[in-house]
Amino acid sequence: MKPEDFDVKELGRATAMTPLNESIRCRPSFGFVTDNDRVLYDTSLASYDKYCKLGEPPVSFEKAGPREFLFFQPSKTKVGIITCGGLCPGLNNVIRSLVMELHYRYGVKNIIGFQYGYEGLIPDYDHAIVDLTKESVNHILHIGGTVLGSSRGEQDVSRMVDTLEMLNINILFTIGGDGTLRGAHALHEEITKRGLKIAVGGVPKTIDNDINLIDKSFGFETAFTIAREVIRNAHNEASGAYNGIALVKLMGRESGFIAAHAALSIQEVNFVLVPEMRFRLDGPDGFIDVLKKRLEHRHHALIVVAEGAGQEFFSGEKQEKDASGNIKNKDIGIYLKEKITEAFKPAGFPHTIRYIDPSYYIRSAAANANDSKFCSLLAQNAVHAAMSGKTDFVVGHWNNEFTLIPIPVTVSERKKIDINGELWWNVLEATGQPGMI
Amino acid sequence: MKPEDFDVKELGRATAMTPLNESIRCRPSFGFVTDNDRVLYDTSLASYDKYCKLGEPPVSFEKAGPREFLFFQPSKTKVGIITCGGLCPGLNNVIRSLVMELHYRYGVKNIIGFQYGYEGLIPDYDHAIVDLTKESVNHILHIGGTVLGSSRGEQDVSRMVDTLEMLNINILFTIGGDGTLRGAHALHEEITKRGLKIAVGGVPKTIDNDINLIDKSFGFETAFTIAREVIRNAHNEASGAYNGIALVKLMGRESGFIAAHAALSIQEVNFVLVPEMRFRLDGPDGFIDVLKKRLEHRHHALIVVAEGAGQEFFSGEKQEKDASGNIKNKDIGIYLKEKITEAFKPAGFPHTIRYIDPSYYIRSAAANANDSKFCSLLAQNAVHAAMSGKTDFVVGHWNNEFTLIPIPVTVSERKKIDINGELWWNVLEATGQPGMI
Amino acid sequence: MKPEDFDVKELGRATAMTPLNESIRCRPSFGFVTDNDRVLYDTSLASYDKYCKLGEPPVSFEKAGPREFLFFQPSKTKVGIITCGGLCPGLNNVIRSLVMELHYRYGVKNIIGFQYGYEGLIPDYDHAIVDLTKESVNHILHIGGTVLGSSRGEQDVSRMVDTLEMLNINILFTIGGDGTLRGAHALHEEITKRGLKIAVGGVPKTIDNDINLIDKSFGFETAFTIAREVIRNAHNEASGAYNGIALVKLMGRESGFIAAHAALSIQEVNFVLVPEMRFRLDGPDGFIDVLKKRLEHRHHALIVVAEGAGQEFFSGEKQEKDASGNIKNKDIGIYLKEKITEAFKPAGFPHTIRYIDPSYYIRSAAANANDSKFCSLLAQNAVHAAMSGKTDFVVGHWNNEFTLIPIPVTVSERKKIDINGELWWNVLEATGQPGMI
Amino acid sequence: MKPEDFDVKELGRATAMTPLNESIRCRPSFGFVTDNDRVLYDTSLASYDKYCKLGEPPVSFEKAGPREFLFFQPSKTKVGIITCGGLCPGLNNVIRSLVMELHYRYGVKNIIGFQYGYEGLIPDYDHAIVDLTKESVNHILHIGGTVLGSSRGEQDVSRMVDTLEMLNINILFTIGGDGTLRGAHALHEEITKRGLKIAVGGVPKTIDNDINLIDKSFGFETAFTIAREVIRNAHNEASGAYNGIALVKLMGRESGFIAAHAALSIQEVNFVLVPEMRFRLDGPDGFIDVLKKRLEHRHHALIVVAEGAGQEFFSGEKQEKDASGNIKNKDIGIYLKEKITEAFKPAGFPHTIRYIDPSYYIRSAAANANDSKFCSLLAQNAVHAAMSGKTDFVVGHWNNEFTLIPIPVTVSERKKIDINGELWWNVLEATGQPGMI
Repeated sequence: MKPEDFDVKELGRATAMTPLNESIRCRPSFGFVTDNDRVLYDTSLASYDKYCKLGEPPVSFEKAGPREFLFFQPSKTKVGIITCGGLCPGLNNVIRSLVMELHYRYGVKNIIGFQYGYEGLIPDYDHAIVDLTKESVNHILHIGGTVLGSSRGEQDVSRMVDTLEMLNINILFTIGGDGTLRGAHALHEEITKRGLKIAVGGVPKTIDNDINLIDKSFGFETAFTIAREVIRNAHNEASGAYNGIALVKLMGRESGFIAAHAALSIQEVNFVLVPEMRFRLDGPDGFIDVLKKRLEHRHHALIVVAEGAGQEFFSGEKQEKDASGNIKNKDIGIYLKEKITEAFKPAGFPHTIRYIDPSYYIRSAAANANDSKFCSLLAQNAVHAAMSGKTDFVVGHWNNEFTLIPIPVTVSERKKIDINGELWWNVLEATGQPGMI
Repeated sequence: MKPEDFDVKELGRATAMTPLNESIRCRPSFGFVTDNDRVLYDTSLASYDKYCKLGEPPVSFEKAGPREFLFFQPSKTKVGIITCGGLCPGLNNVIRSLVMELHYRYGVKNIIGFQYGYEGLIPDYDHAIVDLTKESVNHILHIGGTVLGSSRGEQDVSRMVDTLEMLNINILFTIGGDGTLRGAHALHEEITKRGLKIAVGGVPKTIDNDINLIDKSFGFETAFTIAREVIRNAHNEASGAYNGIALVKLMGRESGFIAAHAALSIQEVNFVLVPEMRFRLDGPDGFIDVLKKRLEHRHHALIVVAEGAGQEFFSGEKQEKDASGNIKNKDIGIYLKEKITEAFKPAGFPHTIRYIDPSYYIRSAAANANDSKFCSLLAQNAVHAAMSGKTDFVVGHWNNEFTLIPIPVTVSERKKIDINGELWWNVLEATGQPGMI
Repeated sequence: MKPEDFDVKELGRATAMTPLNESIRCRPSFGFVTDNDRVLYDTSLASYDKYCKLGEPPVSFEKAGPREFLFFQPSKTKVGIITCGGLCPGLNNVIRSLVMELHYRYGVKNIIGFQYGYEGLIPDYDHAIVDLTKESVNHILHIGGTVLGSSRGEQDVSRMVDTLEMLNINILFTIGGDGTLRGAHALHEEITKRGLKIAVGGVPKTIDNDINLIDKSFGFETAFTIAREVIRNAHNEASGAYNGIALVKLMGRESGFIAAHAALSIQEVNFVLVPEMRFRLDGPDGFIDVLKKRLEHRHHALIVVAEGAGQEFFSGEKQEKDASGNIKNKDIGIYLKEKITEAFKPAGFPHTIRYIDPSYYIRSAAANANDSKFCSLLAQNAVHAAMSGKTDFVVGHWNNEFTLIPIPVTVSERKKIDINGELWWNVLEATGQPGMI
Repeated sequence: MKPEDFDVKELGRATAMTPLNESIRCRPSFGFVTDNDRVLYDTSLASYDKYCKLGEPPVSFEKAGPREFLFFQPSKTKVGIITCGGLCPGLNNVIRSLVMELHYRYGVKNIIGFQYGYEGLIPDYDHAIVDLTKESVNHILHIGGTVLGSSRGEQDVSRMVDTLEMLNINILFTIGGDGTLRGAHALHEEITKRGLKIAVGGVPKTIDNDINLIDKSFGFETAFTIAREVIRNAHNEASGAYNGIALVKLMGRESGFIAAHAALSIQEVNFVLVPEMRFRLDGPDGFIDVLKKRLEHRHHALIVVAEGAGQEFFSGEKQEKDASGNIKNKDIGIYLKEKITEAFKPAGFPHTIRYIDPSYYIRSAAANANDSKFCSLLAQNAVHAAMSGKTDFVVGHWNNEFTLIPIPVTVSERKKIDINGELWWNVLEATGQPGMI
């Protein structure tokens, strides 16, 4: 989605519940954000010139931050928190900071956690509800995973809203990815239909860093930081054998950001294969061929492949979906390993191949320092927005600013690596791999 | 410095050596940067509105990146690299990436390192010159410190330029802080006076993250990441004794960014003291008093103090400067420890205090994954700029873009925490410390 | 203490409370230990030959392990736990495993923690008593420090036993060093005098690894593991400056085990100074002289000094003791730094010196994997012994076996590095330092 | 193998080449080891009593250490080093210390490395020979893998000895496991047959810690240390889903030491499955059944399985061997995952299972501090032995002493966990798993 495709009215503003109750004032702060505080989408001078000449407002984001007036009366507000989808470093940090911000800054003490994602809102599953207090969440920031548990998949929207109504929930925070946010939007629509005053706020979670219009998602840096350690050891596997090949599969269902950043952070990878780049296996200058040349030249090779790369090789096969509705990728790592072996073995080309899939080790890790800080700020801004009556929003991040984005805009498409852009160019330089394989 | 203080002509453009030789083309890239590519300083919609209404160009940075035409003929180009000032995580990553970018992308093979900072340019010191090749730098990215060695302090400008001339250096990369960059500017002026064609490019180094107009400097994230581990253990010291006090001094000569970010990343710190905030020790609601209340309430306290905090307590004393010309801070950590003891001991207030100064442990560490990646990109952009004939510049970073800034602008003042701004507010919330002490 | 100095009767057997109640059977186990199970002190064939020829029993330790009959009725047993002295990695692991072993294996549910060391047994301090349950201790093994808090110093023995009586404590586990164990022995004597049936068991804690007749104490490995990282970075400090000197002070009040093991694990240290080795500072081939030669030759030097080294330099000065009664060492690190500067500066010998004291960072860290395992086994053996009615013992470790040692034997003297033995020889080889300085 | 099965003459003494040349003296040391220095196998008092009463010499090991007289003239000695088999943390540490000890202590400067295991001794492979100098190995101790490369499998013994002869090798150090040591013994026999004076010394490598008569092998502690981190994150995977199961497969072809020690070090594992323990999958109180009960009770489960566990399930299938001749284990991890799914899915028992295989990540890691130290000492003792003319030996470790063991004794069988012994009992206690499944 290019900036010029956006309608500012749709992009720009999270839904605010009316009437805005101007009698409840927020505690003093470093400054309050107003509806006029917006962050430019395109920060180039050229973009400025274009819009200014046209006399049109440039595309911009709603700025996140504390607002002067609250929609909810803190002492009477009840908040629910939910974590959905796959694990991601930082989930517990977000939970903790939501609770701490609600408790200390807004004085909201009535906070519960629904367990195991949207299942927690459906009585049939019989998952217990968890009280979240400043004591119970205090120490969880050093623990990976989520203390609330998670699950994939949709649940009946009407029944979930029944639960929210029955429990007198005023604000529901959902921490999850694309599918979760679509679910949150559906909850918002049902809530609106029923005329309820329940705010639904999303904290976007994607370890792949591929949420649209958000320049950085929590857990992503931790992911490529740990991936780097795995790659570092994988390099030892590769160089420890004659024509040793180490093949590391990393997360990245539809985008290769983790693979690309990990490779840039260690500078020892020879091939990065990502979903955004089609590649051929066979034929001259196909992947097998360039790999063979590399081995003949240097006698070891280190390959990083994003899980979503090369899915076109499976195009004739039946597609499966996981419980979240994501298309399940065929395992490109195992496929590549087999294809390499098939090519080299009959040809008598000596080689050793080690396949490493650290995904579950990475995604279940505790957040690193920078992600921990980032999670805190994300959560604080989610609380600011919801307390002021914003709903159907996610907290985003753009050029060092936290933003609010309407959920439907966020989930409209996924962010991808631009194969002709700077990031991918840097990867090509760092690896020395050909631009086309 | 506020944006409106900038004169765009001064801010905006690194010196380019003329005549620009348009006969040497750069190798193809993902796209070339031109002189019209600029990055807005202020990315708020309000700023846009203001400038557009005035019909004035907004303040903006020159964008870094590869340029279509080179000033230097790669095969005949000789490059020198120098590291100055205190250690900072990532120095070796920058050195490595300068060499790799020059070698692989531009085909520059003649690269030398001067040892021990500017001393390396003065023959009297007799420091050997080091050949820097792709092999010699290949494995240094996992090592802290600098393989070139460093030193503080100024050297005779004229004699340094003599050395550059004698060795036929075409490009000098200086990696260092404020003082180093001032030295680089002086070199540039002497070079210009002599009519030489030597480009001087700076890679700004400040572990404190306080270089003006640069939103993030290399090594800073690694610094607060390690600081977080130290603080985590310090918390165990504090809570392991009755009325236990752990006092951690962190880097931050004139600004408290490391202290603030470390505190935000761990959320266990009770007091953050920074140079930007004056505080009283004595009297009601002075620091000693609020510390005592905290101890009476919770029986342990964790204090983080930036080295430059509270220097006003030493105002009557003689100022010393280090070899770089920085004012040497009196040791606020030891001072606080003594003052606390002086206050509590005679009063019979039982307490245990542990003072921890991890500065040398932190600054000599290897860069973490994110800083490693960042160092590579900084170095690449420094090479792009210098090869295209830019000089007297530093590579900056602003809102996810790499920029070029004239050295005199960068060193005009230091970045500080805005005590009334969002970052400090977040620190106050995370610590629960009073806004005024 | 040499093996021949031991009287087997004194050495060999922890006090057992009589009458041994043989009606309470232990749950089945992998095998029970009996009074005849003993572990040889000297495992050389020569020692065997000597004793066998003499017809004398060789010196041996009582073996630890579960015993068939219990002295205490689990359902009626109440246990207290106390941690004393300085922090050491693994304290929380020991606490956790004491609780888990009592709970799961013996069915003892009534377990309390006294806070802040022996102070917790004196009502005047008014420290709260903490219930220790399997839930409350479950997650503490990843946290450094001690959840019970600690303190140094003696308390009134009679009043402490009053507290034990009043609270109906049957077993008291004290986790601490020399002073703590002396205190435990005093408690035992008072308990015996009063005819009480309270077992007192010690888990010996010394980060310095210097408890007599115990080949390995918990936390020691973690300590030199972290010290190694500090030294690794310190090496970067040394080599990052011309004639750079990095000086790292490590724990080791009366012995240099941490310094020695850290140096052996990294192999980059040039000088290791320990309490066991006297050295001269001045004169030819004194420390300053050999340091200077090293710098002239290699231009950087890395020194590790144990805190107790060189205390003879302060012999004229007044001795201070800490609250535990340990003689407080004068700061040899700062002293060396000053002496080096005093020697080099007036002589115009250019150098840079960095002094690093990571002690509080190291001792407050969480136990590493091997120490965690070791702590569990120590704690289990302490529980086995106490439940079977042993008292006035510590759990030791000798040649891969856990042992029981009477407290008076353990505290009779401290273990030291044999300057003529293999460990020190290895250090000399790894550093290249002269055997005599 | 029980102690009473040993013939002391066979066990006790590494082959020494004659005539022992008593004209070459070793440099002074902390003391020299003689043929009478031996270390008892069984250190229990009971064993002492038995042997002493019988008047028989007890089973004992030859003690390693420097000997007064050398067999080889250092200045004329040429040494080869080889690493074989799978990667193991510490290989580079051993290589480095062999070189450093030869160089600094014995003055042997002519040291070469054969690349890629025994292949390096066969000219057909055309692997280059690598000079090993103190400079070239200085920094490798922080790198996992092996700088010499490795390979599996046997090579023609006669041709390998041809190479040794042709290159005038006097000492060959082989670092490898069972198969490698068998190969080393074959080399020794061929050398003897030819009447050559080439010493063959083994440094035993087994990440599984299963070499007979050696209580601890290098890399093992690093392995379970990293495994612990993987398990810690795996626990987050398990608890992050309703009835979440995390299944971690660890190294351990014929023994479960890594699995057992990792489980003891983290105390969160619910099931440890090892080769030494047969278990049933189906039926009441079979593995599936107890797993289901655990999930019903606690809703998550953490399983650690050694790769060699449950191989009896594949007994009908064709056995494969790897290039080293080891029987290739069928993948018990994948098998268990499938069996659990097969059992739970049709029954509608909701669950999520995550399978994690970190083997290549673990074995390629750099040695931790304790292993680094241990590797140094192993290597030094290998050098001592070979320089004194010992051959056909491995350096072992027993009860804190380094030993020399004839290769044939070492490879006679593998060490295993005693299912009725203390280690396994501790695992049962730490996990709470039934003694029989």
